[in-house]
Amino acid sequence: MKITKVQVIVHCPARNFVTVKVHSDQGVYGLGDATLNGRELAVSKYIEEYLTPSLIGKSPFDTEDIWQFFYKGVYWRRGAVNMTAIGAIDIALWDLKAKLLNVPLYQLLGGKSRNKILTYCHGHGTSFEDTIEKVLEKKEAGYEAIRVQSGIPGLDKIYGMNTKKGAKYEPAIAAETPFEEEWDTSKYLNHVPRLFEKVREAVGDEVHLLHDGHHRLTPIEAARLGKELEPFHLFWLEDLVAGEMQESFRLIRNHTTTPLALGEVFNTMFDCKTLLEEELIDHLRMAVSHGGGITPMKKIAALAELHHVKISPHGPSDISPIGIAAALHLVTAINNFGVHEYMGYEEQTLEAFPHAFKWEKGYLHLDETPGLGVDINMDLVDKYPYKKAFLPVNRLTDGTMFHW
Amino acid sequence: MKITKVQVIVHCPARNFVTVKVHSDQGVYGLGDATLNGRELAVSKYIEEYLTPSLIGKSPFDTEDIWQFFYKGVYWRRGAVNMTAIGAIDIALWDLKAKLLNVPLYQLLGGKSRNKILTYCHGHGTSFEDTIEKVLEKKEAGYEAIRVQSGIPGLDKIYGMNTKKGAKYEPAIAAETPFEEEWDTSKYLNHVPRLFEKVREAVGDEVHLLHDGHHRLTPIEAARLGKELEPFHLFWLEDLVAGEMQESFRLIRNHTTTPLALGEVFNTMFDCKTLLEEELIDHLRMAVSHGGGITPMKKIAALAELHHVKISPHGPSDISPIGIAAALHLVTAINNFGVHEYMGYEEQTLEAFPHAFKWEKGYLHLDETPGLGVDINMDLVDKYPYKKAFLPVNRLTDGTMFHW
Amino acid sequence: MKITKVQVIVHCPARNFVTVKVHSDQGVYGLGDATLNGRELAVSKYIEEYLTPSLIGKSPFDTEDIWQFFYKGVYWRRGAVNMTAIGAIDIALWDLKAKLLNVPLYQLLGGKSRNKILTYCHGHGTSFEDTIEKVLEKKEAGYEAIRVQSGIPGLDKIYGMNTKKGAKYEPAIAAETPFEEEWDTSKYLNHVPRLFEKVREAVGDEVHLLHDGHHRLTPIEAARLGKELEPFHLFWLEDLVAGEMQESFRLIRNHTTTPLALGEVFNTMFDCKTLLEEELIDHLRMAVSHGGGITPMKKIAALAELHHVKISPHGPSDISPIGIAAALHLVTAINNFGVHEYMGYEEQTLEAFPHAFKWEKGYLHLDETPGLGVDINMDLVDKYPYKKAFLPVNRLTDGTMFHW
Amino acid sequence: MKITKVQVIVHCPARNFVTVKVHSDQGVYGLGDATLNGRELAVSKYIEEYLTPSLIGKSPFDTEDIWQFFYKGVYWRRGAVNMTAIGAIDIALWDLKAKLLNVPLYQLLGGKSRNKILTYCHGHGTSFEDTIEKVLEKKEAGYEAIRVQSGIPGLDKIYGMNTKKGAKYEPAIAAETPFEEEWDTSKYLNHVPRLFEKVREAVGDEVHLLHDGHHRLTPIEAARLGKELEPFHLFWLEDLVAGEMQESFRLIRNHTTTPLALGEVFNTMFDCKTLLEEELIDHLRMAVSHGGGITPMKKIAALAELHHVKISPHGPSDISPIGIAAALHLVTAINNFGVHEYMGYEEQTLEAFPHAFKWEKGYLHLDETPGLGVDINMDLVDKYPYKKAFLPVNRLTDGTMFHW
Repeated sequence: MKITKVQVIVHCPARNFVTVKVHSDQGVYGLGDATLNGRELAVSKYIEEYLTPSLIGKSPFDTEDIWQFFYKGVYWRRGAVNMTAIGAIDIALWDLKAKLLNVPLYQLLGGKSRNKILTYCHGHGTSFEDTIEKVLEKKEAGYEAIRVQSGIPGLDKIYGMNTKKGAKYEPAIAAETPFEEEWDTSKYLNHVPRLFEKVREAVGDEVHLLHDGHHRLTPIEAARLGKELEPFHLFWLEDLVAGEMQESFRLIRNHTTTPLALGEVFNTMFDCKTLLEEELIDHLRMAVSHGGGITPMKKIAALAELHHVKISPHGPSDISPIGIAAALHLVTAINNFGVHEYMGYEEQTLEAFPHAFKWEKGYLHLDETPGLGVDINMDLVDKYPYKKAFLPVNRLTDGTMFHW
Repeated sequence: MKITKVQVIVHCPARNFVTVKVHSDQGVYGLGDATLNGRELAVSKYIEEYLTPSLIGKSPFDTEDIWQFFYKGVYWRRGAVNMTAIGAIDIALWDLKAKLLNVPLYQLLGGKSRNKILTYCHGHGTSFEDTIEKVLEKKEAGYEAIRVQSGIPGLDKIYGMNTKKGAKYEPAIAAETPFEEEWDTSKYLNHVPRLFEKVREAVGDEVHLLHDGHHRLTPIEAARLGKELEPFHLFWLEDLVAGEMQESFRLIRNHTTTPLALGEVFNTMFDCKTLLEEELIDHLRMAVSHGGGITPMKKIAALAELHHVKISPHGPSDISPIGIAAALHLVTAINNFGVHEYMGYEEQTLEAFPHAFKWEKGYLHLDETPGLGVDINMDLVDKYPYKKAFLPVNRLTDGTMFHW
Repeated sequence: MKITKVQVIVHCPARNFVTVKVHSDQGVYGLGDATLNGRELAVSKYIEEYLTPSLIGKSPFDTEDIWQFFYKGVYWRRGAVNMTAIGAIDIALWDLKAKLLNVPLYQLLGGKSRNKILTYCHGHGTSFEDTIEKVLEKKEAGYEAIRVQSGIPGLDKIYGMNTKKGAKYEPAIAAETPFEEEWDTSKYLNHVPRLFEKVREAVGDEVHLLHDGHHRLTPIEAARLGKELEPFHLFWLEDLVAGEMQESFRLIRNHTTTPLALGEVFNTMFDCKTLLEEELIDHLRMAVSHGGGITPMKKIAALAELHHVKISPHGPSDISPIGIAAALHLVTAINNFGVHEYMGYEEQTLEAFPHAFKWEKGYLHLDETPGLGVDINMDLVDKYPYKKAFLPVNRLTDGTMFHW
Repeated sequence: MKITKVQVIVHCPARNFVTVKVHSDQGVYGLGDATLNGRELAVSKYIEEYLTPSLIGKSPFDTEDIWQFFYKGVYWRRGAVNMTAIGAIDIALWDLKAKLLNVPLYQLLGGKSRNKILTYCHGHGTSFEDTIEKVLEKKEAGYEAIRVQSGIPGLDKIYGMNTKKGAKYEPAIAAETPFEEEWDTSKYLNHVPRLFEKVREAVGDEVHLLHDGHHRLTPIEAARLGKELEPFHLFWLEDLVAGEMQESFRLIRNHTTTPLALGEVFNTMFDCKTLLEEELIDHLRMAVSHGGGITPMKKIAALAELHHVKISPHGPSDISPIGIAAALHLVTAINNFGVHEYMGYEEQTLEAFPHAFKWEKGYLHLDETPGLGVDINMDLVDKYPYKKAFLPVNRLTDGTMFHW
């Protein structure tokens, strides 16, 4: 059994995606998600030029050896471009293996650990009132967990606020250079506790409320926010502080019992090793694709399990249905699952990626389709060509470059 | 797909083994090793009475859920009897899954990470000269790694010395009560460096030399031994100190660069968590069966990989060919393998467990047989009934109960 | 003076018990409790097959040597099956020694450190109102310390709620497989502070209120609960987090001054060493039988005393009157006693184990009866044969296996 | 003053280089080195597509803001592809600024802290004798510091050994897939101390001897090597252990006083923060280009200075003369410089990059040329087009994927 061909497909069905298709001599193929929002072509070039020639002739079953070959073999290890490239191939190989054995992927990862997968959605509004309305709509729609973000008086262009009327929220914006947002941490810190006081009052105790700080606080600011939100019993506070220096989370952890989530920008176990081993967070949010694939994510989930940390995958629109399916199969099989982010997709995306998973009443559901249960509609690839788009950047009101 | 029946077989083909046979409604069965040397019937009773009824009707693919059901469900967690029982079932389920999918087990664990599996054997003699002779014989036979133990002047009955002429070394002795050996740490500490000076001189640098302290030293004694053996470049010093208190290894680690091995009596990740996370050992020696099966050992191997620790499974005569095969499939699939202990088996044992793995020129080799590649000869079960046998106990020369 | 015979008695006077009877050549016997709820036959087999032959001919006074013989001699140390077996024998030997010397056991352990032993009972209700009623009844009955648990809206089958009308609460349920309960931590965390606000208001400050989390929280959830309960001055919060990883209690300890109790599933000093030496808990709840007997519990109590930790033994219905008596003699003799759990027994159990200790006005009292002061009615043994029963298991509402 | 155009030039004058040329509206340009050995096109694509449009119109003097814009703006931070891209632009901007001000770059970085820059070269041989001969040749040539590597008996294809007769050593090999080398740590560890005993004896005390372990040891193996090499007073032992987990260096540091060097694969301060703050190494070897440019390397040098660590830049053939010049200007201006690696270049490379720095008698020398003092010969770019080439990968002799 051998890998015979690898295709890297860059397309834009509503937004950009990079899809890897690994073919075997059995006439079966596997699919992987190599999308790195705002850096798509660096990853596709990386895979085409430097990874795929080494795959030809290898057995798709040798996922551990192939992963080590690419991880150790690059010499310049880690990093989002590199790990997303490796991750896409690893996902495709697991899809291929499961298809060759004619079982859904979760059967190779330990079988079913739960019947359905809890999701959270985004309930974002411009004002207190608008936010409450959006949250109540989502609750009505069946969501048991809702991320709450709102506009902040005095700041016009901020993260999480929809700028396109009538469309789903999409942070990446097609342009030649990144859009610049603005920020004032002081305004934010004063605003958020008031927001959650009102939202909790409006929705009651039965809904899980989440919030995302988007890496913009210092540890001591994060500690203040966590502490002030305690009465409202958040499910989690996410991405409070930029995560390059894991030890910084010790301070936050000492000050607040609000659960903490982190990790959507992480790429390897080394990015979260201290956070896990010192039990500084409660939810690890790595995407399977950006985290290097199923192979390392199984290992990371094991370390998280030891330390009371749940795997709660990143799942916005730039994770393609292939990437989402990889996460769904992983979290179906592990014991320490938390919650999965789910924004849904635009119509064109759904058409481009026919898939077996379904969302119903707040939960995602897998069926018995072999492999990941996601396909790519090759007829649409040329119809929706890549359009350069960027995530925004962020400046303080005095012009200082800041975390987005 | 359902589990329909579970058999627990206690037999004595040359020595006692407890074998678990899990049947499915597909007419295929899986085998697990539940042997706990000197406590066999406690484990077999435990499985029959308390575990197997819960398996009936479950899917053999749900290994993670079944493992969690037994681990969390007992309330009185951990412990060798409990974990060996769980481990045997987990191994049998993985064997069954691989047979149902018609692939060797390693294909479900990540594929092939190496072509062959390095083994070490026991080169034990009564005196310096006898030991050197035994080690040279083993080297001649093709072993690249040899554990060296020898008789200690002034101590008659000690661990590792063969008492049955013409038979393989077997520590368990059939009787109603345990055999009592004797010990003097001071004599041992003076003897071992002289032994290795002579053995290294005799065999040259090309052979890996190992030694087992069998849990009998204090940390400071272990530190002395490690330090004094440095010039002879041991592959490892094993089981220097009883492992219940992992922090005690910090002292040894500070004093010597001789590599350390530990873990044959460990049953869960919690038994080695500090050793791994603080990088206090170099080789983790857990048996797959005593460690609770393939499911937890994959997780433990992942934590070990992060921390530069190799998986080097325990493999004496009381690990049945089923248990050995479970380890061989595991270490074929992981990157961080060290060495596998291999003593071979008596003729009756080989007859009782027809198996596909083969030892050749210092290495064990798997082939493409689906599952573990080991069977049990049911015709011989009644021919070799269980005979109570014990591992020895140990006293200091003044009569003090001591570590065996 | 020699041990001449050992009997292991498995019987079911209202519930299963395993009782060990060690006979001496003086015509006197000692009794030990080997009950391990839901795993009784594994322990009885273990003792009969592997421990009792080694006792014959030994002096019952050599409790230290015999304990070390079994602890070090098993090679596969620790674990509930093993330690309960050793513990039952150790208790029986101490009972025997005290009877041979014609003194109550506490006289061999240091004499009387107090006149009576504070107990706590269970005040469990289905609703706020029902719980308050039950707590007030218990207060009325003389209890100065009451454990408060209650039904949680939206969860039907949970720990601590009585399912058998008119009978005492008994978690073990006779069946071929464990009963499955259900759980939702979020509902629990919202409910408990409201419960204690109402209960404290109803009973006033004079009653000690306790609560048991039954190992179901993560450290950060435990920290939140401890913090939110601070205004109600609990005597303790027990078993908040599964105890395999003792370091996890550091986080809870940083966040709350609510006293913490742990240890009913512990089997050796190694299970609580970090908790004690870092002073992470306030009460150690080990049962004498599950903790390996009087011999190790004296040592553990000594380490606890050094670190301001009190010994507050586990005492539900599955600890037989023999096990309770062992704990009562121990805590009579030590300085650092906290509180003893006491549920009382069904009529059949009382009949099976005639005993000298008495409960009165919130306290247990020992008298001058030599030894433990508990006997077994051998005439009833055949009347009440063993019936297989299990503690429940627990699943989250999405089907995930969870801590019971 | 504005940036008007950015060119990314991929060429192969003897080996592949990626060169960035940033033009200003003053008719002056700056040059940066974006070469990432074996991943060149991923970086060039990354810069062209995602970075250069954002530069147009910005002031070349705003290096801090531009660096933060790219570092914070990518969202998926760190990683060699990303940081090399940012680093090349930062170097080009500093070159441009210095040219605009008509001063050598070091004048903007703090002026001259030394007159000349100590270099080390590679003295590599196949055998003991050959290595000694090579080292003596280098000493003769004026080198005061020489890295010593040698062939290892029993291993054919290993790092550092020249495979092309008559050419300089070049690890990258032009092919469609990476070349596979082989490895055996045990043979290496036995060999190296003997090598240094002989080499030190041959060259005397006056020459600095260095050695590179190329990330292939575990911490305890590294500790052994460091300890055994102590009598030969190495200038440093480099890259003993893969650096993703900085804490692992504590063990090595505890065991040996041999100075340690690390960092050629590092990309940000976060990669060395623990190493520096805990003073676990003596020399930090980051390349200016791979470390994100002059802007972050100034900050990293500052932290290193605080902790007694010297900046000793990486300088093999894949660092172009532009990258080398960036390092030379940096280390001219800081106080805490150690030594600079210098292999020289093939004729075609020298022709492609006319440069002002000169090597003489063991030292590199800068002159007063404005900027970096390196140019690119644009006439040769098309003559030497990019040829795909890879660094090797490495397998153990049993086939296990290993660190290269």
